[in-house]
Amino acid sequence: MTTDRRFHLNAFLMNAGHHDAAWRHPRTSPERATDLRYFQELARTAERGKLDSVFLADGLALWGNARHNVLGGFEPLTLLSALAAVTEHVGLIATVSTTFNEPFHTARKFASLDHLSGGRAGWNIVTSGSVDEARNFGQDEHLEHRLRYDRAREFVDVATKLWDSWEDEAPVIDRERGVYADTDKVRAIDHEGEYFRVRGPLNVQRSPQGYPLLVQAGSSEDGKEFAAQHAEAVFTAQQTLADGQTFYKDLKSRLAGHGRAPQELKILPGICPVIGSTEAEARALEEELTALQVPEYGLHQLSKMLDVDLSGLPLDGTLPDLPEERDINGNKSRFTLVAEMARRDGLNLRQLIARLGGGRGHRVFAGTPEQIADQLEEWFTEGAADGFNIMPPHLPGGLEDFVDHVVPILQRRGLFRTEYTGRTLRDHYGLPRPANRLAVHA
Amino acid sequence: MTTDRRFHLNAFLMNAGHHDAAWRHPRTSPERATDLRYFQELARTAERGKLDSVFLADGLALWGNARHNVLGGFEPLTLLSALAAVTEHVGLIATVSTTFNEPFHTARKFASLDHLSGGRAGWNIVTSGSVDEARNFGQDEHLEHRLRYDRAREFVDVATKLWDSWEDEAPVIDRERGVYADTDKVRAIDHEGEYFRVRGPLNVQRSPQGYPLLVQAGSSEDGKEFAAQHAEAVFTAQQTLADGQTFYKDLKSRLAGHGRAPQELKILPGICPVIGSTEAEARALEEELTALQVPEYGLHQLSKMLDVDLSGLPLDGTLPDLPEERDINGNKSRFTLVAEMARRDGLNLRQLIARLGGGRGHRVFAGTPEQIADQLEEWFTEGAADGFNIMPPHLPGGLEDFVDHVVPILQRRGLFRTEYTGRTLRDHYGLPRPANRLAVHA
Repeated sequence: MTTDRRFHLNAFLMNAGHHDAAWRHPRTSPERATDLRYFQELARTAERGKLDSVFLADGLALWGNARHNVLGGFEPLTLLSALAAVTEHVGLIATVSTTFNEPFHTARKFASLDHLSGGRAGWNIVTSGSVDEARNFGQDEHLEHRLRYDRAREFVDVATKLWDSWEDEAPVIDRERGVYADTDKVRAIDHEGEYFRVRGPLNVQRSPQGYPLLVQAGSSEDGKEFAAQHAEAVFTAQQTLADGQTFYKDLKSRLAGHGRAPQELKILPGICPVIGSTEAEARALEEELTALQVPEYGLHQLSKMLDVDLSGLPLDGTLPDLPEERDINGNKSRFTLVAEMARRDGLNLRQLIARLGGGRGHRVFAGTPEQIADQLEEWFTEGAADGFNIMPPHLPGGLEDFVDHVVPILQRRGLFRTEYTGRTLRDHYGLPRPANRLAVHA
Repeated sequence: MTTDRRFHLNAFLMNAGHHDAAWRHPRTSPERATDLRYFQELARTAERGKLDSVFLADGLALWGNARHNVLGGFEPLTLLSALAAVTEHVGLIATVSTTFNEPFHTARKFASLDHLSGGRAGWNIVTSGSVDEARNFGQDEHLEHRLRYDRAREFVDVATKLWDSWEDEAPVIDRERGVYADTDKVRAIDHEGEYFRVRGPLNVQRSPQGYPLLVQAGSSEDGKEFAAQHAEAVFTAQQTLADGQTFYKDLKSRLAGHGRAPQELKILPGICPVIGSTEAEARALEEELTALQVPEYGLHQLSKMLDVDLSGLPLDGTLPDLPEERDINGNKSRFTLVAEMARRDGLNLRQLIARLGGGRGHRVFAGTPEQIADQLEEWFTEGAADGFNIMPPHLPGGLEDFVDHVVPILQRRGLFRTEYTGRTLRDHYGLPRPANRLAVHA
């Protein structure tokens, strides 16, 4: 590892927090899930901590069981556009599905967000994993996993061509001659592929970053290949340092096959930090959250992750027989992670629900700010991470605690920035602005 | 007319202004078309004038000829979401096409914008009019006019059901019992129609306004019937008081057939006010703008409006033979308006381009603030308008002049509000919050 590797932090925002019982905890405000000012405060807290970015997940259906958790709320692109107006530095990463959208709309909205924010847009590219989503778009069955990735690849190809359909120098704005744009530098893309036919050009001038930062979060075989080809940052769920190192090495090694260098992709494992001023206080908070869990909710979530109906099973019993990963058409890597966790640690259903409550399969770590900083430093130094996807168990307090108590330690250790040094999200992640692939060079 | 009729004003925002040569005028800043702060200043100017709303048109292709005008820029929903964060009162109306979108996405984004803005979202429902747009979405031909309206009706039906899929009282947020939502009040919609199958529910809680304000702008026969059934505000292009009165009476009379009262739909003709402190100054500004027009641009726009290729024709000649309205698959009412204007006033191409430069078929009126206020009052009092869609010829100055010099006259005459009296866009337009059609009442 070179010594100038930079350490990155993303804040994964989610209503009352990542723990599934967070909304019942006195430090949260579940009634603010549809209050712009609440998210504005979260984004400003992230900015106060000099974090690289904030991130919103997304689904195109009412997931899970809204009876027992804060589900529903803002759509990511509209919310992040509003946050663009009230923040200055922090990156804004929105999840958008390639399975249920059209590339013209998606390319256009991200170009618009990138202009709005002065170059702070990021796109978490997902292929969507559920039949519940398909049924909101006229389909009874969900597109098969591999085909979803085929479509995603073509979708990204079309989007990048649309972002390149205006050269940076196209707007000349010559009032005297009456020439707004040099239209020789604005091009149709005439894409004709298997999934899309799109003529272009885009009706948005090329944006500050050229392309938004391209982010990906699937860790299946298809997902890793897609990431190696297209992604510039990857969110991943890894439970142990060894698993994190294996994943890191595997994914980085795939880049060369696509003509890319290892530093062109940043790997950010998720961590749900349960912070206490003493270890005992952190553990007490973790137990307090576990005690607030609603078992029916946990069973429902677990049923969806494992694609088996667990409703009505005794909580003190173990998992029934599970399908094979190859038969899972949703999130394959999460299925395998949870199945292995249950088997390896011999967990009954109640224990499994407790273990998944904090991070839905992401790593949960309870400790003091110093202990958490140690963990992050270890994973960074030992080749398991270029940074972290921070998933506070409860919000806004869990993010405030991280920014006020963990970030200063990382800064003192020389790991993390003390001021923003660039203007764009690409600057924060140390990634270049892409060259225009359609531009004609003399 | 009852005496408590209220007078409404919408500011139609457009890059450097509505005159096609505005960007060449010294009072405009065409380089700010992708600058959020520029639009923020415009929205705040509208708010300073206590206007009901600001509005953005939209197209899903790079229209016209970007060589000679500021084309391209922000996508409306992302821009208005950003403006929601930096304004407090003014309504935010975005154009979204029903032909190239999915109702789940559109319903969701408007619900999100309505929450973001505290109830200030409006949707200008368009069916899109050009083959250039179709070609960005995998189609070679544009859907036929009548079928576009069939699809639009079903689209709005699905969207309203999705907005009603959460009852207002569904989120109970009972931390003690662990119940976030009363899921008996969150319903699938199970829509199965000719164009869409959508299961629902929406993944957004019911928004402050219930539905965004529903706006429409087509004045063809199909358009008027659609408006009579669904719209709550209509933007229309009317050149003369008599035409305005005929349109107003016609559209209002259609409402009863859909069980609606005349005041449930507000009619807002467009006007491009060219403001001078004297009449001579106003006329000089109009001439200055005409002198800045690029004839190739005007011919190109005119060719699109009339669906004939006029390129290369002599500017001092008259229009060639035109098709019939029934053969126009784009904007039928605009075609007829322009064709009749040319015939009635015996205009050659140069004169027609000059006439259309300011408002693209909307009425242009040059005069003092007093004269403009007289015109608006006359149309309002004489039954041609419930208010106006203000299309400043140049921006930001044209909107500032309107707000600083015309609005105070309207206020002194008791026509226009001096303070906002409500919180939501529906409040501003005096329209009720829709009842939930899916709610079950005991």
